[in-house]
Amino acid sequence: MAIIRKKTGNFLEDFRIGQVLRHKVGKTVTEGLVNAFTEFSMTTNPLHKNRRYARVYGFRDMILPPGLVMAVVFSQSVEDISENARANLEYVDMRFGAPVYIGDTIESTSIVLGVTPSMRDKTLGVVHVQTTGRNQHDAVVLTYERKVQVWKLDAGVEVAKASTEAPPVACELVLPPYEPTTPYASLRHLSNADTYFEDFTVGDTIEHSRGRTMTTEHIALTAMLDNTSQVHCNQHMIDQNPERYVGGQLIIFGGIPFNLCLGLSSPDVADNSLGDIVYRTGRHSAPLFAGDTVFASTEITGARDFPARPDLGVLDTILRGHKFVRRDEAVEKVEIFYLERSLAIKRRSHYA
Amino acid sequence: MAIIRKKTGNFLEDFRIGQVLRHKVGKTVTEGLVNAFTEFSMTTNPLHKNRRYARVYGFRDMILPPGLVMAVVFSQSVEDISENARANLEYVDMRFGAPVYIGDTIESTSIVLGVTPSMRDKTLGVVHVQTTGRNQHDAVVLTYERKVQVWKLDAGVEVAKASTEAPPVACELVLPPYEPTTPYASLRHLSNADTYFEDFTVGDTIEHSRGRTMTTEHIALTAMLDNTSQVHCNQHMIDQNPERYVGGQLIIFGGIPFNLCLGLSSPDVADNSLGDIVYRTGRHSAPLFAGDTVFASTEITGARDFPARPDLGVLDTILRGHKFVRRDEAVEKVEIFYLERSLAIKRRSHYA
Amino acid sequence: MAIIRKKTGNFLEDFRIGQVLRHKVGKTVTEGLVNAFTEFSMTTNPLHKNRRYARVYGFRDMILPPGLVMAVVFSQSVEDISENARANLEYVDMRFGAPVYIGDTIESTSIVLGVTPSMRDKTLGVVHVQTTGRNQHDAVVLTYERKVQVWKLDAGVEVAKASTEAPPVACELVLPPYEPTTPYASLRHLSNADTYFEDFTVGDTIEHSRGRTMTTEHIALTAMLDNTSQVHCNQHMIDQNPERYVGGQLIIFGGIPFNLCLGLSSPDVADNSLGDIVYRTGRHSAPLFAGDTVFASTEITGARDFPARPDLGVLDTILRGHKFVRRDEAVEKVEIFYLERSLAIKRRSHYA
Repeated sequence: MAIIRKKTGNFLEDFRIGQVLRHKVGKTVTEGLVNAFTEFSMTTNPLHKNRRYARVYGFRDMILPPGLVMAVVFSQSVEDISENARANLEYVDMRFGAPVYIGDTIESTSIVLGVTPSMRDKTLGVVHVQTTGRNQHDAVVLTYERKVQVWKLDAGVEVAKASTEAPPVACELVLPPYEPTTPYASLRHLSNADTYFEDFTVGDTIEHSRGRTMTTEHIALTAMLDNTSQVHCNQHMIDQNPERYVGGQLIIFGGIPFNLCLGLSSPDVADNSLGDIVYRTGRHSAPLFAGDTVFASTEITGARDFPARPDLGVLDTILRGHKFVRRDEAVEKVEIFYLERSLAIKRRSHYA
Repeated sequence: MAIIRKKTGNFLEDFRIGQVLRHKVGKTVTEGLVNAFTEFSMTTNPLHKNRRYARVYGFRDMILPPGLVMAVVFSQSVEDISENARANLEYVDMRFGAPVYIGDTIESTSIVLGVTPSMRDKTLGVVHVQTTGRNQHDAVVLTYERKVQVWKLDAGVEVAKASTEAPPVACELVLPPYEPTTPYASLRHLSNADTYFEDFTVGDTIEHSRGRTMTTEHIALTAMLDNTSQVHCNQHMIDQNPERYVGGQLIIFGGIPFNLCLGLSSPDVADNSLGDIVYRTGRHSAPLFAGDTVFASTEITGARDFPARPDLGVLDTILRGHKFVRRDEAVEKVEIFYLERSLAIKRRSHYA
Repeated sequence: MAIIRKKTGNFLEDFRIGQVLRHKVGKTVTEGLVNAFTEFSMTTNPLHKNRRYARVYGFRDMILPPGLVMAVVFSQSVEDISENARANLEYVDMRFGAPVYIGDTIESTSIVLGVTPSMRDKTLGVVHVQTTGRNQHDAVVLTYERKVQVWKLDAGVEVAKASTEAPPVACELVLPPYEPTTPYASLRHLSNADTYFEDFTVGDTIEHSRGRTMTTEHIALTAMLDNTSQVHCNQHMIDQNPERYVGGQLIIFGGIPFNLCLGLSSPDVADNSLGDIVYRTGRHSAPLFAGDTVFASTEITGARDFPARPDLGVLDTILRGHKFVRRDEAVEKVEIFYLERSLAIKRRSHYA
């Protein structure tokens, strides 16, 4: 006649270097998920919204926005990696592979690369993992490393610092070939005329004009991703001990501003993109709460040829998200998100 | 090293008479969009919800509610036509064509019919456009004119009054034929028994019994339509300058009460309809905000034969939406929506 | 020139013993509905989320969670049975039949089993019905009885107490056969390792660790089910007469906590279930409001063989939902939901 309360997720002392965690459940992508996530983020790339357009470009169907692929894979890793996390510290070397379509089933695995106990605080430490998502054909759709601050269950347990190299994961952006006979230009009115590779100047910063206020909808959006972290959805838990939690309120899951900043940047830098290639590093610089309005900007840091694809160029950028916070009498601009992002952008010479 | 902030959308001085604007992105209708929009509006016509029923009626599948077709096409025109609008003034001659199914891809075009600078206010004027949406087979699904009050970017620029005739757009409601051998009556329990053409009396007004409170969900619903207007979703922008915006708060996109009023009227006047034919004129009489509860009524203004379809009748109605507003001690009924609406209604003699 | 306000739904005096009510509209299940409902409830059984997994298990596709099947069928009966209800009293003998897939069309019928006028209050009484939902192949997907307190339209009308026996409805859980050659174990990492039939001990109570705060999203979720009851969505009606309504505010539709409690219990007792068999009895012990956080626990009351299926066991449980309410200085735990639930659980010996 026992009362049982199971431990959920792993604590710092549970992780073993080299350990492979095959995450639970998996997820078949539905039109419901794509509608909610493509749209809330205000993305404007027709590849994510217009089947006719996507097929002319050689895709089998509309493809998921990169931020949604990231949010699905990341969320599958939450229970095993970060259900007991204090803060997500960094995304590293996030690379995209096969396009993801509605109806695909995504399953994910993580390998533990490092554990570093905090020198100052015996109750936690940093876990370093590499997470990889695959589709039903076992093709890699996303791989990335992340560093996350995780609590110990028992602060008295000694945890040794240890690490290993990230194993190589073959993951390069899969794109349909350029077909000179395809009438791409007949679709050019569906995207902006000034966002081709030729239009960008290294050094420029584009302040994206739109903003979007997040509401308590974030709870449902997070649940849609199967992200089970309680700090996003359990108000009672927060109310019991507000000073333990950032801001003393429900914090919005990082996948939400991640997607929203990508979406807000879309009409200015990504609606003539064929795909995001890699996010070299990224982080959530400050928390986001219901009621906050999110804005974004993109700094163009590089522009180079795309290997073996004269129709494309690689645009290197820094995507930043921010919000405005009232402090005393002043309104302060606060960075909430930072992402080093490289995209595969169409050249006007070939497509328009 | 420039800081760039692109102009979004057109201002009064940008419009040219006869100019054709091919709107961006396009939209493939998903089960996610239809679920959100058919249901939030509380429509009860089985053609929008029950595949078995829709197929017996000769449709290929469930069809989108007319309000959703309108909301999709309208929203595609927002960036080019009304991203910089102060107020939407009037819908004119909105006609429905081919039915829209889940999986269809809708793309839209507008032609500028008129520009009229305000006599009293040098900062704005009225733009008159005709907008037409087509599916992936180039069949017209909707065409309508609208008049909208648009800001100038530069109040000092002179804008000449000019206009042209609306070009004819072939757009008539496409309906499956009546098949005498089809067992329509076997489905009659799925719709109301007292909403056939024979049941309506010209001059009657039906107060629809249900009401529905709108929440901040309107932000996500508007984003789902790809409607990018900031007055619906950017709370920070409103807070910076509340007196510039109607009500000093986020205003709910007109497509929301449009759909909701249609839905609320459904069990009383439209659950035995095969389709909405035309909205001769329509307008948003007052703004709607999160927290408001919407009600609707229908006045029956005409009842006539449907040409060459003895199984159907045309019902002419006025659909009105309203809400209740507390002013001092009293609660006042305020009209928020007015639509002259003609529907194709089944005759009991043929279907029940 | 009449003003018409139609009566919506039945009142106590309208019900006749043995009367069969064929409910209106029907519903084709979309990916939009499933995404919203599977996910908001935080269920973790891969059968509802992972097509690859469901197919290996012999299902044609992912199947709907039992709570969603219940919510769809129940909601179809609301207009006829409980649009004019004061309170839902009890679910009885709720049994599941054929699995429900995305794309299935569900239509429902109820038969009136009993009417009992209140001895103390002349304005209402209890209606007892049996409701059955079927798919497009006329296979029963769910059948159950419920007792609901319904208002009279005219308190002066005498209503006689009467009842009849519930007719037998063949409805047993339809499961794919166990196939010894199927590599079920290759999927074992997708569900928990400690939730097989062998893992449960009669008498144990499991406190499920996660909680989930409900927001005003409940209005949209309820509309998605075609549930038309005004107490869930019409704030103006409540404001006019708050003391008439429970808690003086919009009450969350019972199908929401029903689904949410099932979902919260999922990782501990149902992620290795092939289906819920029967809910012997259930009730909403207390109302739920926007802002409340829901928790759940499961008491294991029995464990027995599944007839003719050595690969499965039947687990008898009591699922309870609760929330915390602040009263004066104290926080009180309040039961909101009670369900006697039997599940078909996989045996580790056969599946892992």
